[in-house]
Amino acid sequence: MDQGTARASSDFVDAVDAAMPIAERLFDDLARKTADSVGVTRGSYGEGEQIAHDLLEDTAKSLDLEIEKDPAGNLYMTLPGQDRDAPAWIVGSHLDSVYHGGNYDGAAGVVAGVTAQASLQKLGITPPRDIKVMGIRAEECSTWFVGHHGGHLGSRAVLGLLWPDEMESAIHVHTGRTLAECMDDAGFDSSYFRGRNEPYLKPERIKGYFELHIEQGPVLHHEGFPVGIVTGIRGCVRARSAETKGVYTHSGAVPQDMRQDAVLGTAELVLDIERRCDEARSAGQDMVFAAGKFFTDADHHSMVKVPGKVEFALDIRSQDTAVLKEMQAYATERAAIISQSRGIEISLNDVSLVTPAVMDAGFRGHMQKGANLLDVSYMDIPSGAGHDAADFHDVGIPAAMIFIRNDHGSHNPDEAMELEDFALGTRLLTWTLATVD
Amino acid sequence: MDQGTARASSDFVDAVDAAMPIAERLFDDLARKTADSVGVTRGSYGEGEQIAHDLLEDTAKSLDLEIEKDPAGNLYMTLPGQDRDAPAWIVGSHLDSVYHGGNYDGAAGVVAGVTAQASLQKLGITPPRDIKVMGIRAEECSTWFVGHHGGHLGSRAVLGLLWPDEMESAIHVHTGRTLAECMDDAGFDSSYFRGRNEPYLKPERIKGYFELHIEQGPVLHHEGFPVGIVTGIRGCVRARSAETKGVYTHSGAVPQDMRQDAVLGTAELVLDIERRCDEARSAGQDMVFAAGKFFTDADHHSMVKVPGKVEFALDIRSQDTAVLKEMQAYATERAAIISQSRGIEISLNDVSLVTPAVMDAGFRGHMQKGANLLDVSYMDIPSGAGHDAADFHDVGIPAAMIFIRNDHGSHNPDEAMELEDFALGTRLLTWTLATVD
Repeated sequence: MDQGTARASSDFVDAVDAAMPIAERLFDDLARKTADSVGVTRGSYGEGEQIAHDLLEDTAKSLDLEIEKDPAGNLYMTLPGQDRDAPAWIVGSHLDSVYHGGNYDGAAGVVAGVTAQASLQKLGITPPRDIKVMGIRAEECSTWFVGHHGGHLGSRAVLGLLWPDEMESAIHVHTGRTLAECMDDAGFDSSYFRGRNEPYLKPERIKGYFELHIEQGPVLHHEGFPVGIVTGIRGCVRARSAETKGVYTHSGAVPQDMRQDAVLGTAELVLDIERRCDEARSAGQDMVFAAGKFFTDADHHSMVKVPGKVEFALDIRSQDTAVLKEMQAYATERAAIISQSRGIEISLNDVSLVTPAVMDAGFRGHMQKGANLLDVSYMDIPSGAGHDAADFHDVGIPAAMIFIRNDHGSHNPDEAMELEDFALGTRLLTWTLATVD
Repeated sequence: MDQGTARASSDFVDAVDAAMPIAERLFDDLARKTADSVGVTRGSYGEGEQIAHDLLEDTAKSLDLEIEKDPAGNLYMTLPGQDRDAPAWIVGSHLDSVYHGGNYDGAAGVVAGVTAQASLQKLGITPPRDIKVMGIRAEECSTWFVGHHGGHLGSRAVLGLLWPDEMESAIHVHTGRTLAECMDDAGFDSSYFRGRNEPYLKPERIKGYFELHIEQGPVLHHEGFPVGIVTGIRGCVRARSAETKGVYTHSGAVPQDMRQDAVLGTAELVLDIERRCDEARSAGQDMVFAAGKFFTDADHHSMVKVPGKVEFALDIRSQDTAVLKEMQAYATERAAIISQSRGIEISLNDVSLVTPAVMDAGFRGHMQKGANLLDVSYMDIPSGAGHDAADFHDVGIPAAMIFIRNDHGSHNPDEAMELEDFALGTRLLTWTLATVD
């Protein structure tokens, strides 16, 4: 058990440096073989995703790792541990991307996992328990599947988190085929998940989940840290299809106090929410907010009409469930008050609450210690974006994440992760896998 | 000259009541012959407009009025006065409508003019100067013509107010033909207006302009007055194609203070303008405001993205030019301040200022006296909408307007003018024409 802890931190540095050519070659091959006109495209259950899985599988085989695939098409590459019966570590991330995406969002975590396994091999460490690197399917499925689904389809399928009939109600944007059909078309077995109570991945067989991922915001770059240790994955309160109904009237002939203006009422609501979020942040709470959609009706709006309708969306995120619930209540209350005072009807409609996923405190403390030992400059950071890690957390598996600095956001071809930063994160991941328990 | 003033007010009441069947038949014929599926349609230089002109011309001929048409197709129906060389009164309004419009917007003013002429005939009054009722073309041309034009094409053509090349840059929405072509297709002569310095209607030949029109807002209905005497036609400051540029980023991963959110910045601007307008109104100034368009980009917006772009429109109206200029400066200044504080770029782009048209004080005072004599319950009221009267005002012809109560706004099939209210307004118009000088 102390086989890892007995090593000098410089040993980990040397081993990861020696394994880095594996990562570099994988990143090169991934970029080249899944290139589109401006970035990379690896659609969920599509051709590019399969190319990525094949590349990782080939590399794993060359490292003598054990290969396994589940009925949803997720790939497991296992470095056997001393006790094959002990619950395993999973090191995962996804291998799909958005349309015209970047090379690192998702793939970096799987490549880091395999590089860490190779580094452990170079160190001659046989870990106490199996280390399974998992190439996850369809984390970016919100780009590729419309209809009624809850996202993260690859991990949620094998964790038993799919909703009833979600396999049929998720529809591919291009082909119109259901998720079940896409899974089967790709050579996997959707029937496995039908009417089954036991998940494919049993939480009691998994000791913990680790995920390395590029940061999708600018914070590490801005603050000057190559690595972030994630405190938690923000939950969210979302109004996906909110609507304000006013009354279309003449923008010159109707006195101001007789108008029922949908734009001004909605503007008041979003600024009230912004102000409340500012106050919450000033009080030390974690909180971000956007109204990503806000639009009058192109068929009826006009410069010379008081606007009678606005459709909009709200996305409020925090690491704190209580704060989210408070914001949901606040938004609902303000919508009612503004509706009354302006004679309009603001309907938030379907408001969904996704609870935050707090990262495991023990793992975080251990990783902080490792970062200090390895001289990896890091900061604690929340994850604003969702990750497969949240789904593992949701079934009770302790989870932790490492973020790598990334200059240009994600979901675009301009992602800019430096390989030196990636190496620092992979050293921390390798050391953690060798020493944690 | 005192032929009219010598008559008892009851004579005018009786004469207009006796002439009302003319109005009723015209309204019936107009509604029936220009009916579409849900309302009436009388397109500028289109079939419905021509039907309306023909109906009015037939009625005028039956009343032995003199008929004249100008090269733009406007119709003049003249009751000869004692001095045929004296500058004439024009009583005008338009005979076109919006698509699926109502029967009264525009037509009521022309019908009232002819009914007033018939009433004067019944009274045996030969007015001191000619009274010309003008059926104006293309006041609703903003519905029917796109491209670069300044609206009110029929009156502006004969008043010499068309911009250079406006005849060619106004394009019919359905046929794609230019205004010049539409005018010629309808049997008129667009070449008359090409390169001409003298307008067809010479201001020195017109003593004054009167227009009766349904109110396009709810004020008379709300305040309980059948008739309004218009104080002025509001001018406006308009930003037709304003735009806010922010930066699209991840709605969860980017900290609030690193966002450049186009929706929140634009919302702040429109609420600031609303607040300033409220303050101006509280200080007794005439002011209305709407942002009739406010929309994120459907190709790029998403609930999970900070919005990077908003397009919007502003329409600020007042009877006071100084107030409009102050609001234009305020909006411009706030846009700059908000842009700076939020790291976005709000561009109002083309901002146009249309000056208000103040109605002639002498005419207004005379009409107020008449309303009292005739026992017509009235209120003073601004016109928020534009009217041909503003164009006559703009070339220096004194103008006045009478509004008739109308329950359901205009530009829709549900306009609801009561004929009793119309008769009250027509009494006032008839008395005014008989007595003003």
